[in-house]
Amino acid sequence: MPLKFRIKHTLDRMRVGKVKTRHGSFETPVFIPVATLAAIRGLDNRDLKDMGVEVILANTYHLHLRPGDELIKELGGLHKFMNFDGVIVTDSGGFQAFSLGFGMEHGVGKIANNIFLEELREERLREAENERKKLAVVTDRGVRFKDPKSGRIVELTPKKSMEIQSNLGSDIIFAFDECTSPLSDRDYTEKALERTHRWAEECLQHYDRRQALFGVVQGGEYRDLREKSARFMAERDFAGYGIGGSLGKSKQDMLNILDWVIPLLPEEKPRHLLGIGAIEDLFNCTEKGVDMYDCVAPARWARRGHLYVSPAEGGNVRNKFRIHIKNAAFRIDNRPVDRTCDCLVCQNYSRAYLRHLYKANELLYFRLATYHNIYFVVKLMERIRESIADGSFYELKREWLGF
Amino acid sequence: MPLKFRIKHTLDRMRVGKVKTRHGSFETPVFIPVATLAAIRGLDNRDLKDMGVEVILANTYHLHLRPGDELIKELGGLHKFMNFDGVIVTDSGGFQAFSLGFGMEHGVGKIANNIFLEELREERLREAENERKKLAVVTDRGVRFKDPKSGRIVELTPKKSMEIQSNLGSDIIFAFDECTSPLSDRDYTEKALERTHRWAEECLQHYDRRQALFGVVQGGEYRDLREKSARFMAERDFAGYGIGGSLGKSKQDMLNILDWVIPLLPEEKPRHLLGIGAIEDLFNCTEKGVDMYDCVAPARWARRGHLYVSPAEGGNVRNKFRIHIKNAAFRIDNRPVDRTCDCLVCQNYSRAYLRHLYKANELLYFRLATYHNIYFVVKLMERIRESIADGSFYELKREWLGF
Repeated sequence: MPLKFRIKHTLDRMRVGKVKTRHGSFETPVFIPVATLAAIRGLDNRDLKDMGVEVILANTYHLHLRPGDELIKELGGLHKFMNFDGVIVTDSGGFQAFSLGFGMEHGVGKIANNIFLEELREERLREAENERKKLAVVTDRGVRFKDPKSGRIVELTPKKSMEIQSNLGSDIIFAFDECTSPLSDRDYTEKALERTHRWAEECLQHYDRRQALFGVVQGGEYRDLREKSARFMAERDFAGYGIGGSLGKSKQDMLNILDWVIPLLPEEKPRHLLGIGAIEDLFNCTEKGVDMYDCVAPARWARRGHLYVSPAEGGNVRNKFRIHIKNAAFRIDNRPVDRTCDCLVCQNYSRAYLRHLYKANELLYFRLATYHNIYFVVKLMERIRESIADGSFYELKREWLGF
Repeated sequence: MPLKFRIKHTLDRMRVGKVKTRHGSFETPVFIPVATLAAIRGLDNRDLKDMGVEVILANTYHLHLRPGDELIKELGGLHKFMNFDGVIVTDSGGFQAFSLGFGMEHGVGKIANNIFLEELREERLREAENERKKLAVVTDRGVRFKDPKSGRIVELTPKKSMEIQSNLGSDIIFAFDECTSPLSDRDYTEKALERTHRWAEECLQHYDRRQALFGVVQGGEYRDLREKSARFMAERDFAGYGIGGSLGKSKQDMLNILDWVIPLLPEEKPRHLLGIGAIEDLFNCTEKGVDMYDCVAPARWARRGHLYVSPAEGGNVRNKFRIHIKNAAFRIDNRPVDRTCDCLVCQNYSRAYLRHLYKANELLYFRLATYHNIYFVVKLMERIRESIADGSFYELKREWLGF
């Protein structure tokens, strides 16, 4: 088996486990930083080691377009290419093909990326949806779209996704799925789900046996479709399960979906909630039984000046555990971002210095900010694991979320 | 004394020495990386330590404008602000006020920055020179100019430069000087030199006694003016000497200027050639007796895709010891940039990976490229010091320059 999952502790629906693959192992629940193009914004492999990052996720879609998965294969695979000796996960390419691929990062893309409908104007979404239909064609075969960079027509199919991921040589791969948006109605979502299920079987047929294949549960916000999908996937021999697609219109919808899906998935397999990773979610979804998360949020927030702080520094659900480093109050603040954080940044630099770097648009800001935010989340997951193991999870959650 | 200089070995006009200041020490001849705004493009203080960087140069002009030298003083000085415990040099602010300050990085600024006249079209230079006259006013008091960022009128005078550098708390400071361009005629250069000399005396009067003040020899490409300036500075009690301003129209002019100036400077004081740092120059100018260099070139070339390689990898005077990482030949090249280099980058990453990062405009590229180029030059200086100490300098020079 290319993947072994051992559950070491449980607490209600939560579990602390260990995933072993041919390139090392990691403890769950885990936060997986995203290395879209085989790099995480200014962090090198020594940084990742220092931070305790044992697993990263790279994007199949992006690497297929550049530098190309065949080139990466010729160069010895992704581990050698980026010189990372931990576990590498690749996604199926589906999400990007259905959203980012259309060059609409700020339209439907983000919705599908689990930012909720209510945060965007309906009208703009409809426009984006129409635009998207022009740029990508979904057929029963797969999806065909125009690469926004090169103008080249690219087709992704289940078989092709398996080929690309095989070329990349990642340890954990995902079955090719159609990622519906919160705008999709029930009829469309149902048709898309049927495709996703057929594609899952194609992936099972074609995937590289040295890799661990995860099936992806879809079905949008519809209970019967989610349950149908969970049962379908659970019956097949996947190494683990992703939960993807539209997670509804609010955080509560997302938690409901987890309540429907997770009890139907096999206990002994890891569950990966795709694209989610806000601090609050890491507590709430872990409580529902999620084992793996990946999310670009820590790096994206860092880039925009938002740095994570713990409750000891005033972090809470309302401020989303973030300070904005540009705040004038930090102009003459010699304290670290978070005095309870032992990362390279908090051990070495002041808020005043980071504010200066941010305002001056210095490259070092992006490195340090990304370092802190990712470290912060990785260490939080470590504490969450400990709290599940010793039974103090609910106390830790109350300390952070206030309830 | 805030600075001690001990000469340990000599070979013809060359010396290997050790400079001691209140914040640590460094060996000479030395290459000093430039941290314009108190940061070196994505490198943190641990990187600098790993690279063996014991001394950096920060820009008085830039830090005065942002975040402000008074703020840095309040925060405990530059060493604490950027958390660097090595030696910090600051320039006088003069060069930037006379060139960069006018927002003309690609006009006269670069000429004054010792890129030679012949490399740019005369016409564009004249335009830039006229533009510059509109934006900055030089008087006997100092220079008054408009900050291109804020629109604010700023005045730099010798006394003000000493105050700013005192606030920054650097270890080695430079006297405020007027930096003439290669377009300045003899008359203007002579008048500017008189000002520079008067200003040097003002600086000697006002500088912070905890800092080591270097005088700057000016005089453009005119032998009598250079000699006059060298004698003037040598007679005054400076801790060391900078050689600045226009270094003529060719590399040979620069070497001639060093031949005129250096024999007139006191043997027992270090000599800093301002703004110079091409590989070839590091050999040729060291041979003339230069002890200290600072230059943005390694970082700038890195940013543009040019990575340094040694003769073992085909580096030579014609290719300026650089490869361009975008070259198609590196697409499938699993070798490091330079197999004789033991830096973080060459020990961990391939040319193919760096090429991918460069083409994808990934932040990690800028960090790794800057790391390699600065490390390369810092280590080359180490080898040059060793070769002076053991008498093999001319062999090393022949190996690198071919003559």
